[in-house]
Amino acid sequence: MTMSLALIAPGAMGAAIARRLTDHGADVMTTLAGRSAGSIERARRAGMRDVDLAQLMHADLLLSVVPPAEAESLARQLAPLMAASEAPPIYCDLNAVSPATLARVERIVHASGAAFVDGGIIGPPPSDRAMPRIYVAGERASSLARLNDLGLDVRVLEGGIGSASALKMCFAGINKGMTALTTLMLIAAGRSGAGGALRAELEHSLPEVVDRIDNGIPDMLPKAWRWHPEMREIADFLDTTAPDGENMAGRHAFEGFAALYEQLGDSARNQEMKRLLDSLIEPSPAKA
Amino acid sequence: MTMSLALIAPGAMGAAIARRLTDHGADVMTTLAGRSAGSIERARRAGMRDVDLAQLMHADLLLSVVPPAEAESLARQLAPLMAASEAPPIYCDLNAVSPATLARVERIVHASGAAFVDGGIIGPPPSDRAMPRIYVAGERASSLARLNDLGLDVRVLEGGIGSASALKMCFAGINKGMTALTTLMLIAAGRSGAGGALRAELEHSLPEVVDRIDNGIPDMLPKAWRWHPEMREIADFLDTTAPDGENMAGRHAFEGFAALYEQLGDSARNQEMKRLLDSLIEPSPAKA
Repeated sequence: MTMSLALIAPGAMGAAIARRLTDHGADVMTTLAGRSAGSIERARRAGMRDVDLAQLMHADLLLSVVPPAEAESLARQLAPLMAASEAPPIYCDLNAVSPATLARVERIVHASGAAFVDGGIIGPPPSDRAMPRIYVAGERASSLARLNDLGLDVRVLEGGIGSASALKMCFAGINKGMTALTTLMLIAAGRSGAGGALRAELEHSLPEVVDRIDNGIPDMLPKAWRWHPEMREIADFLDTTAPDGENMAGRHAFEGFAALYEQLGDSARNQEMKRLLDSLIEPSPAKA
Repeated sequence: MTMSLALIAPGAMGAAIARRLTDHGADVMTTLAGRSAGSIERARRAGMRDVDLAQLMHADLLLSVVPPAEAESLARQLAPLMAASEAPPIYCDLNAVSPATLARVERIVHASGAAFVDGGIIGPPPSDRAMPRIYVAGERASSLARLNDLGLDVRVLEGGIGSASALKMCFAGINKGMTALTTLMLIAAGRSGAGGALRAELEHSLPEVVDRIDNGIPDMLPKAWRWHPEMREIADFLDTTAPDGENMAGRHAFEGFAALYEQLGDSARNQEMKRLLDSLIEPSPAKA
């Protein structure tokens, strides 16, 4: 039987996931009313079928792959339709949201009578060269394992609702936090006349950090404005995860990273920093 | 001509440096009055010659390798002797101190009439397997390059007084900051039922972080009490290095790491965290 999916996914990640699914014979529905020309073109190329919201209720699974700020409003918009449906799709939220937001989405979906699955995507959009891991958690999470037959890499976690989102936050915290830390110290070294020496020392003793300087920082700079609120989400996550009285370590660290990315994302404030970074980054030949 | 050094160095790093120097024929003096039995035994095994403070003034070079909190008091103690000497040794501070402390030490040494060199040691004590880099900066820094003929690895920086200490702070900030960040996120994942999944994801996409989990965290835990004030020194360093209004990023980040290391160093507060970490660390066979 052809599997039927509803995918609310205006961006690059969602379209690339849809493309994998349709290439493997799945029926992927979406709703394009009110979407941008870019989203409509992406959906068309991915082989997605444009339907109205009510028809999405015929899907087996509904995947939400939207900007974090839209995760909750999407659930609210679909709730009456799920409530009116005899067999609403299993609702899987794959967005990078904090535990508090996730809990609100879960409550809305449960109240509508649909089953809820927590999810998180780690890695770049599917392509010839890359395949992200899609982590899912919750009682009905194993329903998503069927997507492994449709060209995706889905991994079911045992930790219950919240563990997939937490995994996504922890991975992003390490990866984007390490880039923030490297950027901070490289700028401080540059301001102290020790930038070139720091780079040479890292080449000797921590070569993976040099890779972060030459590839991670140039990749981050145009996204810093977007990473800034994500660092605040991680600060909230760490705060609520830690016992009372022990929560300042994570909150402080990620508020520091948020401040750095906020500044790097602001062209009126980032010029001295960008100049210093430019002088210490050696783009790899393939990307130069 | 035999080179003559004065080395004020009660710890493992100083003794190992002295051992390299005496093995290469240098005369290494120190003063053991008031030192612990451990320091006296280390000095004896390193071939150091115990003299009184006044005799240290006959050395060509004086190296200060003491705990950061003692860097300034050592300079104060030696200042009258340097002032009374016709040709006092070049005074090189190799300690992990903030720019503010370094500036105070420099002022004391200059006022005594001795030449001052800023320095920083990166890496583990010299041994059969390892050789730290000794970075030096300042007008007279090239005098220390002679130590390269005596079994050490000395690198002269062009950045002027302060750049060697800054380099040491920046490297320590990256290295110990990355361990703090990894520890924070591993604990948060463990508390969220996603610890094992985070480890597996890192094995796939960031294997160098798994090495930090299995080797860096066990190495850090017994030193956390000592890394905690070092993180505060780095917070101060980043604060004074950044322009006004842009200094909260680094200060916040390293105050967060300081809070983590403070907690991990306190056996009354670290039990839940250590239990979580223990369950997620897989010691490598060689160290198990």
